[in-house]
Amino acid sequence: MRLASYIEQTLLRADANREAIRRLCAEAREHGFRAVCVQGSWVAEARHALEESEIKVVTVAGFPLGGAASDVKRLETEVAVDDGAHEIEVVLNVGRLKDGDDRYVLRELRDVIEAADERPVKAILETCFLTREEKIRACRLAVEAGVAMVKTSTGFGTGGATVEDVRLLVETVGDGCEVKAAGGIRDARLAWALIEAGATRLGTSAGVQLVSAGG
Amino acid sequence: MRLASYIEQTLLRADANREAIRRLCAEAREHGFRAVCVQGSWVAEARHALEESEIKVVTVAGFPLGGAASDVKRLETEVAVDDGAHEIEVVLNVGRLKDGDDRYVLRELRDVIEAADERPVKAILETCFLTREEKIRACRLAVEAGVAMVKTSTGFGTGGATVEDVRLLVETVGDGCEVKAAGGIRDARLAWALIEAGATRLGTSAGVQLVSAGG
Repeated sequence: MRLASYIEQTLLRADANREAIRRLCAEAREHGFRAVCVQGSWVAEARHALEESEIKVVTVAGFPLGGAASDVKRLETEVAVDDGAHEIEVVLNVGRLKDGDDRYVLRELRDVIEAADERPVKAILETCFLTREEKIRACRLAVEAGVAMVKTSTGFGTGGATVEDVRLLVETVGDGCEVKAAGGIRDARLAWALIEAGATRLGTSAGVQLVSAGG
Repeated sequence: MRLASYIEQTLLRADANREAIRRLCAEAREHGFRAVCVQGSWVAEARHALEESEIKVVTVAGFPLGGAASDVKRLETEVAVDDGAHEIEVVLNVGRLKDGDDRYVLRELRDVIEAADERPVKAILETCFLTREEKIRACRLAVEAGVAMVKTSTGFGTGGATVEDVRLLVETVGDGCEVKAAGGIRDARLAWALIEAGATRLGTSAGVQLVSAGG
């Protein structure tokens, strides 16, 4: 498979405006990326810009800090679905996970999955803040809730995707779900190493650079 | 006035857990801070920890990227009010502001203010991403919408509060609202310079350090 088919080209900067969203979508068409990932208020614009293409529109909930109330993440998902999002990425409540409040984390994920109404939901673990035990527990909760994927990182934390983390996540989830690597993926060598480790999607804002270098 | 009375002690890290929230609230009591600022899922906990004190609980909407859908920011505000928040800080949709879509920015702020049901709303401008003209326009829209305050920064962008920005915001809003400085305020000299420039609140995660050094 070509590198481009793994890439979810991401633009979640606070200052992304209409022109930047349109450029993102044009690049996704040009290079044949799998998806674009945008903030909620840009979902409809991205859908419009990607009409009559196979490119998916992904958006986020509780992003990037994960500490919004569960009801907010649920509604964020509903609004995104109404606006035409194909997939939702929700950041776990990292603090509750650290508190050992597994019931909270599980219930929240289930609520979001229900609100997504059959659309795939990815749980972002934000691995840079987690111990090995917490990463494993987060994976198990995400699979139990029924996510389509676990994702390593938001790209706004203190660290991004590592080959070691992807291996751990892939090993832990087994065939329970897929694994998306994201955060700091800026060269094709790392991109391929993450795929080799078992990632089936790559989230990056450097997709064009990646496919130009080694796609 | 003592420095502590200006301080809204802030803990918006993704990995803040229950113990960290309780510690934050205990520090706020000990040093007499004006308020604590926490993510939405911790509002009820903070209210509980601050019972029988004058310390306010502030929370955020659309934080820190500002690109969530307007409906989500509105609901986030409603949920926060239900959970007991005294004040709401909402991040402007920076991209729409840059697009010149003033109607969008204004309507969103008005929706949030209505949802806040008489509680003060602060509009976070995220000045690090704005030109001088955009800062002025954002202030005028915020005042027109009826905010209680404009706030310089989220602390998650590429820059924080500066004396120059606070002066510009104070001059622009006039007596239309107050100005909160936040982001990177880690020493008492800068804190007092921002107050001198007209800020009436300081958002910082280093409140204890500030008052120990120069309060």
